[in-house]
Amino acid sequence: MSSAVTAQAPAVPPRIGRLRPGPRDAITDVAGIAVGHATLADGPIQTGVTVILPHDGDPFRERVPAAVHVLNGFGKSFGLLQLEELGVIETPIALTNTFSVPAVAAAQIRATIAANPKCGRSLPSVNPLVLECNDGILNDIQALVIGDDHYRAAIAAAGPSVPQGAVGAGRGMSCFGVKGGIGTASRIAALANGAMATVGALVLANFGRPDQLIVAGQSWGERLAERLRGGRRGEEADGPEKGSIIMVLATDAALDSRQLRRLAARAGAGLARTGSVYGHGSGDIALAISTAYRLPLDRLAEMPAVRFVADGLLDPLFQAAADAVEQAILNALWAAEAVTGRDGNRRRPLLDLLPELESHP
Amino acid sequence: MSSAVTAQAPAVPPRIGRLRPGPRDAITDVAGIAVGHATLADGPIQTGVTVILPHDGDPFRERVPAAVHVLNGFGKSFGLLQLEELGVIETPIALTNTFSVPAVAAAQIRATIAANPKCGRSLPSVNPLVLECNDGILNDIQALVIGDDHYRAAIAAAGPSVPQGAVGAGRGMSCFGVKGGIGTASRIAALANGAMATVGALVLANFGRPDQLIVAGQSWGERLAERLRGGRRGEEADGPEKGSIIMVLATDAALDSRQLRRLAARAGAGLARTGSVYGHGSGDIALAISTAYRLPLDRLAEMPAVRFVADGLLDPLFQAAADAVEQAILNALWAAEAVTGRDGNRRRPLLDLLPELESHP
Amino acid sequence: MSSAVTAQAPAVPPRIGRLRPGPRDAITDVAGIAVGHATLADGPIQTGVTVILPHDGDPFRERVPAAVHVLNGFGKSFGLLQLEELGVIETPIALTNTFSVPAVAAAQIRATIAANPKCGRSLPSVNPLVLECNDGILNDIQALVIGDDHYRAAIAAAGPSVPQGAVGAGRGMSCFGVKGGIGTASRIAALANGAMATVGALVLANFGRPDQLIVAGQSWGERLAERLRGGRRGEEADGPEKGSIIMVLATDAALDSRQLRRLAARAGAGLARTGSVYGHGSGDIALAISTAYRLPLDRLAEMPAVRFVADGLLDPLFQAAADAVEQAILNALWAAEAVTGRDGNRRRPLLDLLPELESHP
Amino acid sequence: MSSAVTAQAPAVPPRIGRLRPGPRDAITDVAGIAVGHATLADGPIQTGVTVILPHDGDPFRERVPAAVHVLNGFGKSFGLLQLEELGVIETPIALTNTFSVPAVAAAQIRATIAANPKCGRSLPSVNPLVLECNDGILNDIQALVIGDDHYRAAIAAAGPSVPQGAVGAGRGMSCFGVKGGIGTASRIAALANGAMATVGALVLANFGRPDQLIVAGQSWGERLAERLRGGRRGEEADGPEKGSIIMVLATDAALDSRQLRRLAARAGAGLARTGSVYGHGSGDIALAISTAYRLPLDRLAEMPAVRFVADGLLDPLFQAAADAVEQAILNALWAAEAVTGRDGNRRRPLLDLLPELESHP
Repeated sequence: MSSAVTAQAPAVPPRIGRLRPGPRDAITDVAGIAVGHATLADGPIQTGVTVILPHDGDPFRERVPAAVHVLNGFGKSFGLLQLEELGVIETPIALTNTFSVPAVAAAQIRATIAANPKCGRSLPSVNPLVLECNDGILNDIQALVIGDDHYRAAIAAAGPSVPQGAVGAGRGMSCFGVKGGIGTASRIAALANGAMATVGALVLANFGRPDQLIVAGQSWGERLAERLRGGRRGEEADGPEKGSIIMVLATDAALDSRQLRRLAARAGAGLARTGSVYGHGSGDIALAISTAYRLPLDRLAEMPAVRFVADGLLDPLFQAAADAVEQAILNALWAAEAVTGRDGNRRRPLLDLLPELESHP
Repeated sequence: MSSAVTAQAPAVPPRIGRLRPGPRDAITDVAGIAVGHATLADGPIQTGVTVILPHDGDPFRERVPAAVHVLNGFGKSFGLLQLEELGVIETPIALTNTFSVPAVAAAQIRATIAANPKCGRSLPSVNPLVLECNDGILNDIQALVIGDDHYRAAIAAAGPSVPQGAVGAGRGMSCFGVKGGIGTASRIAALANGAMATVGALVLANFGRPDQLIVAGQSWGERLAERLRGGRRGEEADGPEKGSIIMVLATDAALDSRQLRRLAARAGAGLARTGSVYGHGSGDIALAISTAYRLPLDRLAEMPAVRFVADGLLDPLFQAAADAVEQAILNALWAAEAVTGRDGNRRRPLLDLLPELESHP
Repeated sequence: MSSAVTAQAPAVPPRIGRLRPGPRDAITDVAGIAVGHATLADGPIQTGVTVILPHDGDPFRERVPAAVHVLNGFGKSFGLLQLEELGVIETPIALTNTFSVPAVAAAQIRATIAANPKCGRSLPSVNPLVLECNDGILNDIQALVIGDDHYRAAIAAAGPSVPQGAVGAGRGMSCFGVKGGIGTASRIAALANGAMATVGALVLANFGRPDQLIVAGQSWGERLAERLRGGRRGEEADGPEKGSIIMVLATDAALDSRQLRRLAARAGAGLARTGSVYGHGSGDIALAISTAYRLPLDRLAEMPAVRFVADGLLDPLFQAAADAVEQAILNALWAAEAVTGRDGNRRRPLLDLLPELESHP
Repeated sequence: MSSAVTAQAPAVPPRIGRLRPGPRDAITDVAGIAVGHATLADGPIQTGVTVILPHDGDPFRERVPAAVHVLNGFGKSFGLLQLEELGVIETPIALTNTFSVPAVAAAQIRATIAANPKCGRSLPSVNPLVLECNDGILNDIQALVIGDDHYRAAIAAAGPSVPQGAVGAGRGMSCFGVKGGIGTASRIAALANGAMATVGALVLANFGRPDQLIVAGQSWGERLAERLRGGRRGEEADGPEKGSIIMVLATDAALDSRQLRRLAARAGAGLARTGSVYGHGSGDIALAISTAYRLPLDRLAEMPAVRFVADGLLDPLFQAAADAVEQAILNALWAAEAVTGRDGNRRRPLLDLLPELESHP
């Protein structure tokens, strides 16, 4: 049955909301954004690295504005402290498994030094930015296999096309008891002053108990939990949530870090609509960046003159953020393939367990 | 048609979630909590005051732990600064219209002085706690009619039974273009260690654009907006959201202020499921209190020895908070009656516009 | 002896730091800022209102960027919630006694409605902004005498000249057991890119135990406490701190609200150098605004194109903020006259008790 | 001259404040706390690791309450996100150089897995906790030499005696243009209810421009900057601050995480009194823990019944925190020896440049 699902014309999830997606329905619809994965899939090693590049320049020298909204801070991210103080990112945004955050942060330090030999000496030290979920069910997370090479490979692979599902940092992730991972989506917002803006989302989805699942407003959780209870070895139907979700938003609208924090907070609305109540053990974190302007590292360089979007115009962007996040989560669930990893633990795609969702939309 | 709706056996909204409500399905299922309203309904004056009492003692002398989570800070609440620093409330929680916050805060000061003549002299000054929504569509908010009497009347009326809908502070509130107001609900949570706890919610619902409405997962917004567009004089179908929602949670579980902040944050999940994306102009604020213990005003008095709930046990409380808030919003919409106020502005009950919801659940 | 102090050429406090003050050594050295007081001094009534106007236009229609930093949130300020969300102020900044916050907030609402009749209807409701200290030792704070008239009188009196000491909201304030009140100062900062900027401070000083006092680095607290212990009726040498301090910073540098929050945080350094450790019962709050640009109420109006100061250039502004706050506190202490108020309670000027400070600098 | 300073009876810094220190004048006066260093001093490698253990058990299984206060978030610490959410620490507190944070975090992960083989699988993942300053002037920070061994060596060396100065993470640190590093101090606070409590501080001092230095209230900055300007090769008198300070507070008073955050904030008062205005590029972070009770990892284990200190009793603890931090900074400056590191860069002890400070107290 599973093969039937993935073989022919792939099933597509319901379309969320009334806003129009961009041409790729991906975070890369925000011009300049690139996404790359490095995926490790070998027996008990089911993990990886995903990077999101804000532009094709050096992010250490040309910073973009950024903000974070922490829905639930049960997480081990690196770099949020300085991001909150200065309102910028200085590296690509990197995603990986919980115990590999140090390795990826070290890789970012090395990459920044390689490009900026005075970093940490006459230039300021770089602020690595790594977010994570725990893929310890499918992946032997204690093996600590991620290293510099995987970060560099993800950077080298970055481009406008975004593979979804069990790829990159999403390789070993679980979501609602089925296979989670990487999902992306975008929405076009029309502002009251006639301007248009794109909001893109990319999620690393590793959250949710089976019985919580809501798809496009409909509660499928009971049915999913029941089928998992009667399920195969290596699956779980119950137990506390031990997952997390990282939600990255990007927009081409000219927002400052305060406004980006407001935008990031709306990721929580999209997340809630898939069934999450931001469980205790779930590191639920939303990050938002704008590509509309860049801030120079050199404090004596001329600053850009920026005309920000008025706060009174933000509502369509807020709707776009919530809808894109909800859509990106569904896209992750629909795109994921079955993965068997550590100790025979196994996660199937959602449609394997709920095939009736294929014809649902 | 409207009369048909309200006359016979009243329609009840869908039941949200799988947790069981308390005996009243109200915030007063948390033992000791009392709620009172003072309602003004006279032509262009459609407003009021609602109070929530944490216990039947003097809240200035026996404080209860509290926390706030601000989803969107477009609001004029009074008292949150000190609440965040000290983690307690010192007065009943009062709700009213935006421009009457000062009057109700002054009433709280006078009431506290009356009961504690040294307040502000040898005793500390009291921290009033007043939250608000803007009822300026139906109510002549500029008239500033609320005064001490209305606050005292609401206190005098307080008890375990909670009238819902267009009462108290909810008298003039709008929600999704129809009549909003006061709603309440509760849920019983079973913790993993065998303990039971109650979470109650009371909302002052004044938020949402018609086209955003979701009821129990189903999107009714398009249909509602369409019917309002073809609607009566004094109604609005479109335009930016100018509302707000105040969500008060209470629990008998022994939580400290850090944990109560975590609980309050889950109100945002329940709110999102009704269609909100926490609009720019909407003051969306969640407050949470615990009745499990009290903290004495006198710094030399013995402090209680408290055994808090472990954070790892909080998930059922988080689910209860989200579900109770979503339920309370629906209860407010179902309980509201039609109100015509300032300049003939008018809000009908939701079921007037969407009668098919009567038989929906 | 006291008369000798105030009669002849007035003593001046030590000059703090190495930065140059502006021409007035006052917050009004920031062009456009005006300050006004209304003072009530009649037996047990020793209180008032102070206002700070950001410019001579309508602050509701032309907002200026703002931020708050809360050192210790034991305080009853009104308006900080929305200020933090939107990063602007919409009214003059008003200071008064703790229990009169509601009256002054109501006065601000009335004044805004008078100038903008659609406020709270088709225009958004206004966010009053009132900060406070408790003058309950000298003033009969329970009498609640402040009203609309006093707010309007303070506005009418506003100008570039800033009376200091026991005036306006400072009338009944105590500081280190002696007479506190209003103080102001300014500093000129030279940035590394050659630009100049002014930082002004105005404080409402009502904090500190006598034994904590530090003047320009020298600890005078022990001596002050000793002399107060041997002092006159109506004075206090010991006991817990029950005061507060409000510190308002203004600058003509183009900072956004994130940067203004950073600037406001440096007020804490200046405050600490006078002996404060931000006592439990002291509401220690710093507010910062920039006059470099204005943000229109109308969301469809064109936004200004702003070239912000680079964060890497902020250090001289941070030094100016700390120094101006420390100086403003000393200025308040030096300017204060003796006040006898409620129940014969009495506060003398600092120099009455420590006359050796006259010749100190 | 330098040798004269360190040879004979070592000079001691002025005693700060009027509170009594504990027997060691060290953070280890808080019973159970242990401190260990691993120091690397070899030509251009001048760096290390310092650890603070909350008790002699497994901190992953027996957590202690904790909080952080960020004075200026220009820093790359690891672990603060979850610390803020859950209010506990799960590992020893580790300090090192900026670019070695990942290596030390990885070492903490490995150490926790070694002691708890199910960590990250059926047990939650561990939250590493590493704070840092940039020692890139004296140390070849780009060499990334710190590894697991150094972390384990620091743990193995931990005990109640605390070497100060150019040791552990302090080896390569600079402060006010002279040699900084590790300092510690403690103060005994008498509460109004008769109880006694100890507050200890340990700082990693790497902040301050020479001209800012204040010692016990007296400004020595101008003189210090002047002497450095006429100084030796490899020293700097001017330029922007590029340092940071980490301030760790510990107490045996029963405080919850909210109260510990309040305590941590008072570190900023002590820091300000040494001349800092929390410079833009300085990561100024204060952490506070209580050893009065422990929270079990196992969510089904019985929670302790805790009787917290009333907030109204905290003032002596606040004073102790501010004084201990100021003292610890002076202790670091007095204890530091001369270090010559990368590229001949050099930092002398403060007393080498200001020998008049020897006889100052």
